[in-house]
Amino acid sequence: MNFRQSFEIDHLGPCRHDNPIATEGNAHFIDEDERLLCDPYLSGLEEAVESGTRPVGFELAGPRRRIHFDPTRVRAAIVTCGGLSPGLNSVIRGIVMQLWYHYGCREILGIRYGYNGLGPDAPPAVTLTPERVSNIHLEGGTILGSSRGTPPTATLVDALAGRDIDVLFTVGGDGTMRGAAAIQQEVRNRGLDIGVVGIPKTIDNDIPYVRRAFGFETAVAIAMQSVRAAEVEAKGAPRGVGLVKLMGRHAGFIAATAALAAGNANLVLIPEVPFELDDLLGWLEARLARKDHAVIVAAEGAGQNCFDPETLGRDASGNQALGDIGTLLRDRIKTHFTELGQPAVLKYIDPSYLVRSTPANPTDQIFCDRLARAAVHAAMAGKTGMLIGYWHGRMTHVPMQALEGQTRRVNPQGELWYAVRENTGQPERLGAPA
Amino acid sequence: MNFRQSFEIDHLGPCRHDNPIATEGNAHFIDEDERLLCDPYLSGLEEAVESGTRPVGFELAGPRRRIHFDPTRVRAAIVTCGGLSPGLNSVIRGIVMQLWYHYGCREILGIRYGYNGLGPDAPPAVTLTPERVSNIHLEGGTILGSSRGTPPTATLVDALAGRDIDVLFTVGGDGTMRGAAAIQQEVRNRGLDIGVVGIPKTIDNDIPYVRRAFGFETAVAIAMQSVRAAEVEAKGAPRGVGLVKLMGRHAGFIAATAALAAGNANLVLIPEVPFELDDLLGWLEARLARKDHAVIVAAEGAGQNCFDPETLGRDASGNQALGDIGTLLRDRIKTHFTELGQPAVLKYIDPSYLVRSTPANPTDQIFCDRLARAAVHAAMAGKTGMLIGYWHGRMTHVPMQALEGQTRRVNPQGELWYAVRENTGQPERLGAPA
Amino acid sequence: MNFRQSFEIDHLGPCRHDNPIATEGNAHFIDEDERLLCDPYLSGLEEAVESGTRPVGFELAGPRRRIHFDPTRVRAAIVTCGGLSPGLNSVIRGIVMQLWYHYGCREILGIRYGYNGLGPDAPPAVTLTPERVSNIHLEGGTILGSSRGTPPTATLVDALAGRDIDVLFTVGGDGTMRGAAAIQQEVRNRGLDIGVVGIPKTIDNDIPYVRRAFGFETAVAIAMQSVRAAEVEAKGAPRGVGLVKLMGRHAGFIAATAALAAGNANLVLIPEVPFELDDLLGWLEARLARKDHAVIVAAEGAGQNCFDPETLGRDASGNQALGDIGTLLRDRIKTHFTELGQPAVLKYIDPSYLVRSTPANPTDQIFCDRLARAAVHAAMAGKTGMLIGYWHGRMTHVPMQALEGQTRRVNPQGELWYAVRENTGQPERLGAPA
Amino acid sequence: MNFRQSFEIDHLGPCRHDNPIATEGNAHFIDEDERLLCDPYLSGLEEAVESGTRPVGFELAGPRRRIHFDPTRVRAAIVTCGGLSPGLNSVIRGIVMQLWYHYGCREILGIRYGYNGLGPDAPPAVTLTPERVSNIHLEGGTILGSSRGTPPTATLVDALAGRDIDVLFTVGGDGTMRGAAAIQQEVRNRGLDIGVVGIPKTIDNDIPYVRRAFGFETAVAIAMQSVRAAEVEAKGAPRGVGLVKLMGRHAGFIAATAALAAGNANLVLIPEVPFELDDLLGWLEARLARKDHAVIVAAEGAGQNCFDPETLGRDASGNQALGDIGTLLRDRIKTHFTELGQPAVLKYIDPSYLVRSTPANPTDQIFCDRLARAAVHAAMAGKTGMLIGYWHGRMTHVPMQALEGQTRRVNPQGELWYAVRENTGQPERLGAPA
Repeated sequence: MNFRQSFEIDHLGPCRHDNPIATEGNAHFIDEDERLLCDPYLSGLEEAVESGTRPVGFELAGPRRRIHFDPTRVRAAIVTCGGLSPGLNSVIRGIVMQLWYHYGCREILGIRYGYNGLGPDAPPAVTLTPERVSNIHLEGGTILGSSRGTPPTATLVDALAGRDIDVLFTVGGDGTMRGAAAIQQEVRNRGLDIGVVGIPKTIDNDIPYVRRAFGFETAVAIAMQSVRAAEVEAKGAPRGVGLVKLMGRHAGFIAATAALAAGNANLVLIPEVPFELDDLLGWLEARLARKDHAVIVAAEGAGQNCFDPETLGRDASGNQALGDIGTLLRDRIKTHFTELGQPAVLKYIDPSYLVRSTPANPTDQIFCDRLARAAVHAAMAGKTGMLIGYWHGRMTHVPMQALEGQTRRVNPQGELWYAVRENTGQPERLGAPA
Repeated sequence: MNFRQSFEIDHLGPCRHDNPIATEGNAHFIDEDERLLCDPYLSGLEEAVESGTRPVGFELAGPRRRIHFDPTRVRAAIVTCGGLSPGLNSVIRGIVMQLWYHYGCREILGIRYGYNGLGPDAPPAVTLTPERVSNIHLEGGTILGSSRGTPPTATLVDALAGRDIDVLFTVGGDGTMRGAAAIQQEVRNRGLDIGVVGIPKTIDNDIPYVRRAFGFETAVAIAMQSVRAAEVEAKGAPRGVGLVKLMGRHAGFIAATAALAAGNANLVLIPEVPFELDDLLGWLEARLARKDHAVIVAAEGAGQNCFDPETLGRDASGNQALGDIGTLLRDRIKTHFTELGQPAVLKYIDPSYLVRSTPANPTDQIFCDRLARAAVHAAMAGKTGMLIGYWHGRMTHVPMQALEGQTRRVNPQGELWYAVRENTGQPERLGAPA
Repeated sequence: MNFRQSFEIDHLGPCRHDNPIATEGNAHFIDEDERLLCDPYLSGLEEAVESGTRPVGFELAGPRRRIHFDPTRVRAAIVTCGGLSPGLNSVIRGIVMQLWYHYGCREILGIRYGYNGLGPDAPPAVTLTPERVSNIHLEGGTILGSSRGTPPTATLVDALAGRDIDVLFTVGGDGTMRGAAAIQQEVRNRGLDIGVVGIPKTIDNDIPYVRRAFGFETAVAIAMQSVRAAEVEAKGAPRGVGLVKLMGRHAGFIAATAALAAGNANLVLIPEVPFELDDLLGWLEARLARKDHAVIVAAEGAGQNCFDPETLGRDASGNQALGDIGTLLRDRIKTHFTELGQPAVLKYIDPSYLVRSTPANPTDQIFCDRLARAAVHAAMAGKTGMLIGYWHGRMTHVPMQALEGQTRRVNPQGELWYAVRENTGQPERLGAPA
Repeated sequence: MNFRQSFEIDHLGPCRHDNPIATEGNAHFIDEDERLLCDPYLSGLEEAVESGTRPVGFELAGPRRRIHFDPTRVRAAIVTCGGLSPGLNSVIRGIVMQLWYHYGCREILGIRYGYNGLGPDAPPAVTLTPERVSNIHLEGGTILGSSRGTPPTATLVDALAGRDIDVLFTVGGDGTMRGAAAIQQEVRNRGLDIGVVGIPKTIDNDIPYVRRAFGFETAVAIAMQSVRAAEVEAKGAPRGVGLVKLMGRHAGFIAATAALAAGNANLVLIPEVPFELDDLLGWLEARLARKDHAVIVAAEGAGQNCFDPETLGRDASGNQALGDIGTLLRDRIKTHFTELGQPAVLKYIDPSYLVRSTPANPTDQIFCDRLARAAVHAAMAGKTGMLIGYWHGRMTHVPMQALEGQTRRVNPQGELWYAVRENTGQPERLGAPA
C-alpha cells in the first residue's frame, strides 16, 4: 500500500455543539491533531527524518469534545449493501444504541435492501429503536436486508434530502464505498449538510487500511469446520480427496487462515499464487500414491488463469466474472483419475452460505460494537466521505478516496503465506521439482 | 411393516462357556424366552387373543449367562461400509472396549475400507486396542475407512476363514446387511463356526425395525443449521429464496425432522409425498408475493417424478440412479422467475458432507455405545445372521432376512408429517386450491 | 412402578364441538378406546391372560374429532413453576402456536413467576401471541419467569374463575403436579368448567410414567462438558482430582448419563447407590497411587447418609433439606490427602446454573413441541387433572393422581447403571475387596 | 508502561550455522536492525525528534538467516507452568512441529508438571514427536501437566545441564518468567550455552508488552456464556440476581470483555475500579426496584478493599492472598435483602475451570502457532532471557527483565472501560449521586 498519500478527512463544517457524553463522567475525548503512524518501523521513520518529510498517519476515531450536529435533532439512516457477512446485525445494533443512549438521537431509519431501498418503488424504511435491535446480534444476516446494485447517485441524494436525513451510515464493500464517495461528492455539489460515514464490510478481508474486517474471525471459524470435514471425508474412502471452496474473489485470506486453523490441509490455492491445472494433477497423483488421501482448500478466485475470460463475461456489477474453480477442479480431478484407471473418491464442499449467515462470535461482536461506536462519533463530529479503519489495534478515520487504486492481498512473501506453506508442506510453486 | 413374520434368531451352536461378566457383580443377564411385543397396543393384543395366535415379539439384546465362544480365544473383526454417518467411530470404540474389558478378547481386527478390505489387494487390517480407540469418538468419520461395493461372497468367506476370524461385526446400511446375510448363508453352507452380527447404519433413518438410527440426531442438529442459514439468506435479499437439500434417498426423515427443529421452513419436500414442478412454482409465486421470502427444504429423493428414469440410468450398485432434485429446483426456480420478469434471489445450500462427517453428539455417543455392547453380547452368545434393532426404547435382535421386502418411510398420515405441515403451514398437496 | 392401577382420565363433560383441524386435510384423530400397553413384554401379557385380567395401558395423546370447548371462545393460561430446565420456552411457544393456528384461540395469558402469579400482589399476566413467542425457543429459561411455593388452592381457583380462564397449562415438577391436582379437585367441588393439563418438567428425569423429560438431553450434553473439563483439570496437575457435582436430588440420571457420554469418569456417585466416605477416600488413594489422577461425578443427592438429617433441617417447601455433597467431598478429600502428607490437587466444578439455563437442543425442541401439541389437544377435548406422559415413543395421558406414591429412579440392577459401571470400571460397592 | 527503557535482547553467542529453512523457497528472514516502535503516535515521535532521542522499539520475531545452534544436534525441552489456559497444547504442538519439520531437530523433551518436573523425584520427561502432538490442539489443558512452585534455580540449571538440554521453552505467567530470568542468569554465571525462551501465558491478559495473551479470546467466549446464563437465571425469578465471578486477580480484562460480548450485564466490577459494599447494595436496591432483575459480573480480584489483608494471609507463592469476592457478594447480597424484608433470588456462577480447560478456538489456535514458531526461531538464533511479545499485530522479542516493575491493567479512563460503562449504563463510581 502507498503510504505517501494524505489521509486528511473531509468535514461538513463548524462544530457548534458540546458533545453530550461530556456529562457522563470520564469521557475520553480524542485530540484532533494526533496521528497514528501508518508505518510504525524505525527504518521508515529514519527515512522520513532524513528526507525531512513528516510521516503520514491516520486520524484516530473516537468522541470529539465539540460536534457538528445538534444531537437531539439529528436524523440518521443506516443501509447495508452487498453480500452477507457475520456481524451486520451487530453493527446496526451498535449504531442504534450509541446514537440513542449517548447522543440522544431519536430518529433512526433502517433502509431496506441496500442502496435500492433509496430508489423508486422501494419498500418503506424501518424505524430503529433500542427495543427493536436489542437481540438482533444473536441472529445472522441483516434485519434490513441487502442487495447489490444501486440507483443513480442523484436519485440517492434526492432521497436523502427528501427524507431530511442528516447522516447516512453505509455498511458495505469497496463498491459500496465508491458509491458512498459519489454520494458525498453530489451532496457537496448541492451544498447540502449531509454526512456519509462508511463501515467497511468485506468477508474476504481485502479492504486496504483495514487490518481486520468485521466478521472475518467468525467466518474463518465456520470455514475451518468444512476443512476438518474434508479431512474426515478424505480419510473415509480409499484414494479420498476432500475439496473445499471458500470465499476470496481476489484475496485468499479466508482460505489461508481457515487452513491454518484446521491444521490439516495439504494444499491451499489462493488468487495471489497462480498455478497450472496439470501441475496440480501431478501433485495430487504423487500425494495419493504416497498418502492415499488429500485435503485441498481453494479460494473462489484461485486459478483464474485456467479460464478464458472471454467466455466468462461480466457480472451484474460489470466486473469480469470469475470462473468457478471449485466445480472445475471437482470435475477435472474426477475425470483425470478415472482416465488414469485409478479413480479418486472426491468429496466437494462449498460452505459459503453457511459461513456468511452465521451470527458474529464474541470477538466479532465486540469488534462490530467498536466500529459502530467509532462511526457514530465521526458522524456527529461532522466527518464525511470517510470510513472507519483499523490499524495497530486502533480505530481510525480513512478518507474514502484513499481506497482508489489500492488493494489488500495475501503477500506470497509474507508471514501468513509462509505459515500456510510450513503447515501444509506444499511447495513454493506447484510443478517445481520437489 | 409386517409383524406376522417370525423374528427368531439363528445360532451357531451350543453355549459351553460361562459369561465372564458374571463375576463382575450384579450382571443383568437376559432371559432367552422373553419377547418384546412388536405391537404394544391393546387392540392388536385383543385381536391376537381372539384369533388364538401368540403375538410376535423381538428377542431382547443383552448379556447371556452362557456363551458360545471361548472369550479368551475369540478373534473378532470389524468392518464399516457405505457412506459416512455420525457415530461410526463411537460404534468401533464401543465394540473394542466391550470385547477387551468385559470378555477379555485380545484379538480385534479393523478391516480397511468396507468389504473391499477383505478382497484381494486390500490394505492390511488394523489391530484395534483400547489405547488405539480411546479418543476416536471425538472425531467424525471412521478410522477404518469405508467404501461401497463388495467382492463376491465366496471371497469374503475365504478371507474370514483364512484369517481365523470367529466373529464379524458389520456396520452398514441395508445393502451391507444383505451382504452380511449372504456371508452367513455361505458360512453355514461350508459348516464354519463364524458369527455375523450387524449394526445398522442409515443416516436416512430408513431401516425397518430400527426406530432410530445411530447418528440421526446428530445429523438432524447439523442439518438444522443449514435450514436456519437458509432463512437468514432468504430474508437478507429482496424476493429471497433459501433452498436446502438434505439427505434422504427414499425416506424424508432428516428433511422433515430438521425442518421441525429449525421451526422456520415454509415448504418441505420428501420422497413420500410427490409433487408437480408447476405446482411448486405456483406456490412459490404466491408465497413471494405475500411474504417476499421463502425457505424450502428438499430431501434428495423428493420429486423423482420430475425426472425421466431412462436418462438417469443406474448407479454403481445397480440401483436406479436418483435425479438431482436440488440443482433442478435451483435452476428451474431461477429461470422461472427471471422469465416472469420478477427475479428471485435464490441461495442453494447442500450441507451433506458436513452433516455426515460430524462426530456423534452426547446422545448418539451413548446410543452407539449401547448398540456396540449389545452386538458384542449377541456375538459372544453365538447369535448370527442378525442385527441389533431398537424398539420401544430397548435394544433387540432382528434376523437379517426380516429386512427383506420391508421398508421404513415417513407416513404421510402420521404424526411426524402432520407436525411438519402444522409447522410450515404447507398444504396437504401442492397445487390444491388453498 | 405399579402398573396395576387404572390410568383412566377425568373429563370436564360432553364434547359438543367439531375439532377445527378436521378441515385441514389428513387429520389423524386418535381413537379414544385404544390403549398403549404399559408393560410390552410377552411374559406380563401371558400372566394377564392367565389371570383373566385386562392388561393396563395409557390413553394415547393426540387430536380428538369432537372437543369440549368452543375453540373460538376459549381462554387459556400458561404457568411455569419450579427451577429452570432447558425447553421451557419451547413448550410455551408450542402451546401458543397450536392454540392460535390450529384451534383459532385468541386469548392466551402467560402467568408470571409460577403459581405465585395467581396470588395477591402478583404482577399482571402477559398476553401471548405467535409474534411474541416466535423466537423464544432460541433463548434459555422461561419468558414468564418461575418461582417455588404457591398461594392456597382456593386463592388459585378464585383467580382462575375471576379471570374467566377455561384451561390452565401447568409446566412443572411433581410438586407442581400435586398443586395442579388440588386445583382440579377444588374446581370440581365448585362445579366449575375449568380444565387443568400438566406438562411434566424434571431436569432430574425422575417423574414416573415419563420415560424422558424435556430438556434432559440438552442438560446431559452441557453437563458432559463439565465432566470433560474435570478430566482436563485432573490430568493437568500432579495427583489431580476433578470433581463435578450435577443435578439429581433423588435420582442420578443426569450424573450417570453425562458420565457415559463423556466416557472418561472414574467414579459416579448417585443417590440410589449409597457409599461410606471412608470407602471413597480409600478408593481414591488407590486410584491416585495407580493413575495419578481421578475424575469423580456426584449427583447432588448422592451420599446423604454422610449427613445428619437433624442438622440439615427442612427446605422452603417443607421437605428434608439435602446435605451439600459437593462441598463436603471437596473439603474432606483435600483434608484427607493433606493429612496423609500426599496432597491432592482438587478442582471442583458445579455447572448447575449453566446446565439449567441453556436453550433446548434440536431434539428437545422437537420433543417440547410434541408435548405442547399433545397438551393442547387434551385440554380442548376436555381432559383434566392429567399430564402428558411419554411411553414407548408415544405421547400419552396420565392422571395426575397416578403419580402418588410412585417414583422413578436409576435401577442399580438395570442397563444404565451397569453401563456406567462397565464404563468407569468402578466396583459394585465402594469398599468391597477388589 | 515505561517505554524509556531498552528492549535489547541477550544472545548466547555467534551464529555459525545457516538457517535450514533458507532452502525452502521464499524464506522471509528478519532484519536484526529493524525495530517496531513501541509508541506509534506522531506526538511521541515529534517529542523524540525534538529531544534528540531515538524512539525505542522492539526487535521483530521471525527467522534469522544465520543461527547459533546446529539444528540437527540441538536438544530442546518444553515446560508448562501455572494454571491452565486455552491453547497450551497448541503452543506445545507448534514448537514441536516447527523444530522437527523446519529445523530438523529430533530431540524434544516434554517436562512434566512445570518446573517441578526438573526437580528431584520428578516423573520422567516425555519424548515429543509430531505423531504424539498432531491432534493435541483439539483437547484442552496441557499434555505435560503443570504445577505452581519451583525447585531452587541451581537445581533447575543442574537438571538442564545434566540432561544436555540446549534450549528451554518455558510457557507460563510472570512468576514463571521471573523463574526463567533467574535460570538464564545462573546459566550465564556458569558459562553454559543454554538458551531460555519464554512464551507468556496469562488468561488474565495482564503481562506487559503483550497486547493479547494466547487463550484470551477463547476464555472470553466461554466466560460470556456464563454471563448470558446469569441473565436467564436473573429473569427467571422475581427479584432475580445473576452473579458471575470471572478470572482476573489484578486486571479485569476477562470480566470487562466478556460483559461487552454478552451485552447484557448491568454492573461490572474489576480490581482497577474500587467500590464500597454499601454502595453496591444501594445500587442493587435501586436496580431491583426499577427493573426486578440484575446481572453482575465480578473479576476475582475486585473489591479487595472489602477484606482485611491480615486475615487473608499469604498464598502458596508467598503473595498476599485474595479475598473471595464472589462468595462474599453472594452472602452479603442474600443477607441484606432478607434483612430488608425483600428477599432477592441470587444465582451464583463460577465457571473458572470450564473457562480454563477449553481447547483453543480457531483464532487462538493460529495465534498459538505464531507464538510457537516465533519462539523456535528466536531460540535457534541464540536469543535468550527473552519472551515473545505481541505489539501492533507483530510478534516481537521482549527481554524478560523488562517485565520488572511493569504491569498491564484495564485503564479506567481508556476505551475498553468506557465501552463497558456505555454498555452497562453503570455510573463512573458506585455511590455517586445518579
